[in-house]
Order: sequence, then C-alpha cells, then structure tokens
Amino acid sequence: MSTRGNLFIVSAPSGAGKSSLISALLKDKPSDKQVSVSHTTRKPRPGEVDGQHYHFVTVEQFKALINQSAFIEWAEVFGNFYGTSKSVIEQTLNKGIDVFLDIDWQGGEQVKILMPNTVGVFILPPSKAELERRLTGRGQDSKEVIDARMAQAVSEMSHYTQYDFVIVNDDFDSALADLKAIIRSQRLTCASQQYAQNDMLNDLLAD
Amino acid sequence: MSTRGNLFIVSAPSGAGKSSLISALLKDKPSDKQVSVSHTTRKPRPGEVDGQHYHFVTVEQFKALINQSAFIEWAEVFGNFYGTSKSVIEQTLNKGIDVFLDIDWQGGEQVKILMPNTVGVFILPPSKAELERRLTGRGQDSKEVIDARMAQAVSEMSHYTQYDFVIVNDDFDSALADLKAIIRSQRLTCASQQYAQNDMLNDLLAD
Repeated sequence: MSTRGNLFIVSAPSGAGKSSLISALLKDKPSDKQVSVSHTTRKPRPGEVDGQHYHFVTVEQFKALINQSAFIEWAEVFGNFYGTSKSVIEQTLNKGIDVFLDIDWQGGEQVKILMPNTVGVFILPPSKAELERRLTGRGQDSKEVIDARMAQAVSEMSHYTQYDFVIVNDDFDSALADLKAIIRSQRLTCASQQYAQNDMLNDLLAD
Repeated sequence: MSTRGNLFIVSAPSGAGKSSLISALLKDKPSDKQVSVSHTTRKPRPGEVDGQHYHFVTVEQFKALINQSAFIEWAEVFGNFYGTSKSVIEQTLNKGIDVFLDIDWQGGEQVKILMPNTVGVFILPPSKAELERRLTGRGQDSKEVIDARMAQAVSEMSHYTQYDFVIVNDDFDSALADLKAIIRSQRLTCASQQYAQNDMLNDLLAD
C-alpha cells in the first residue's frame, strides 16, 4: 500500500491561535504529519537548526531557486526572503506524510494555483472582542499599535472564503479536534483512497 | 446561530458492515444526527412504528406523492415501493440535524442530481476473501447463492467512484472514527460555516 500525504495551507490572523494548534497537532511527533520547512535568507537565531527550523540560504542561492521555479510560494518580509520548495514538499508527500504550510492568504493563493489539490484551512477567533483581548496582550502597547494589529487581522480574515475549511478557535480542544477531523477526512476522499488502496480495490472489483 | 445539517448518502455492498456502523453512530441518540425515515407501501412488521421506522402509506398515496415530485429518490423492490421525501429531509436539515440516507448507488445517483450538496460515503470490506467469509454466513447457503451475493456485491462496489468519501471497514472502531471524522469535517466547510457562523463573521469582519 503506497499512501500519499495531503498538503494543507493553514492561515489565520494573529491572535487566532494557529501556532498553538499546529504545535498541539505535532506535539507527539506523529510520523505522518509535519510542518513544511521553509527556505530563508535571514540569519539563524540561537538554537535554530538548518534543515529543521529552516533551510538557511544566501540571497544569491534564493534568487537562483526563484529562477529555477523551485518555489511554490515565496515572499520578501522585512528585507528577508522566505520560500517553500516544491521538491521538498513533493518528496514528503510521496512518503505518505501530510505537510502543513503555515502561510498567509497571499502565499496560500500562490500554492493553490500550482498545487490545486491543496486543502486550505482558515482559523478564526471566536469574536472581535476576544481577538482584541488577545492582541492587546499584556497591556504594554499603545492604542495605535493595537488598532493597527486589529486592522491587519480584519484584512487577513476577509480572505477566509478562499479556504476549504474554517475552524473557529473558541474552545482550544474542540478546535484541535476539528483540525484532526479535517486531516483524517482528507485521507478518506475517493481520490486519496484510490491511490492508497489501489491493490485492494483491484482485488475487490476483479470478476 | 442557525445551523443547517448535512445530508449523507451511505452505500455499501452487503457484508461491508454499513448497518452496524450507522447503528453505532446513532447508538447514543445524538440530537444532531438521524437516519432518514422512508415512505413505504409494504406492511408494517411486528414492532415497527409508523413515522419512526417508516412512513407507511398505501400504493395510491405513494403514487400521488410520485406525481407531486415529493421524493428525492424512490424505487420498487419486490413489489413494494420505498421513497425518501424531500420535504421531510429539508425540515430535518433545517433543524441543524445531519440526515443519513441508507440507500444503494442508484438511489444515491437520483439524490445527488436533486440535492447536489449531498455528501456520499461508500463503505468497503477490507478484501474479497473477507467479504466472501462475511457473505457465506453460517454455511447454510449453497455455493450458487453465495456466488450470486458476491456478484451483486462486486456490481454495487463498482460504483464507489461516484462517492465523495470511501471508508474501508477492516477494523470496526477505526471505520467508525473515519465516519465521524467525515461528518465532523462537513460541518467545517467554508459554506457550512458561512451559514452557521453568519452573525459572528459579520462581527469579525466589520470595520
């Protein structure tokens, strides 16, 4: 039985709890799930391991990869490049591992064009009041800073309709169970099963 | 919050364990899930309750309902009519209840045309050998009878590609968890959430 993993885009505004959900999902280091490891040109921070947290490359290497169309999505953020290598993703999926891309809606849009079978999951906070509470943090930021964060969050959330699934992160355990149900169900689509159960289906349907 | 349930078609060959899976799913009488109650012209068997096991009607009543296009699918089996009323389904879905149609691929095909948002789930046995074992039963039937059952099962299974999801019922608990994951995930599709979370989304996305 040869299984192929699914590629998931997981997007959310700041304050929706996306990172905590992904961490909880991968806490026990499941053999069939992993977050995509991006390429970046920014310098490693203390404790970051090349190939585990990021693939660290030079600007010249990154630009060469862009020219080779090696990325399914890339972006420049605060002067550093970040990108997702198509071949790394494909190799991982072919091992039967589900891959999670923790990217924003713009990156998600690029990926969906190049890999249309990608499953998009958008995480929402339960209310605007709760989002504001989460983005206010420990009360050390000015009203202007918080307002700017809220505007950014509303802008990001306005793209939720481009996603296949929407999870409202009100109760964390329930949101995690939602995410797990989506992931499990995507192994059960007719197309996934035709691939994974090919030999069994041939046996079952033989005259 | 007004939720709308989803309509599921669940089909399988005899011996795949469909009835046991549906029974297990509804064992605790969940308030948000129920099997569709069909109309039939056959006589009630001892213990069968009108409106609970079937809506028992006369042939004249049934034919009048056909003429009113009241059914999303109907069939004549061994001289009796069986049908699924569209208005009964719609009323149940509008209460936020998921409805399960336990029908074969022909019925499923009719329903998909009239209600395209229906989610099709096909249950398969894990192998031909295991299917034959299950269909052989207690060894009281002739080889011809068992061969005919197997041929019927293979014919039914050949339509699995018309379904959205495929569950292989090898381990029962795992197959039940698969079914539950599919049901849960369908409450999380973007369209379902737009309907269920309409007020919350308006609040979140307001300027």
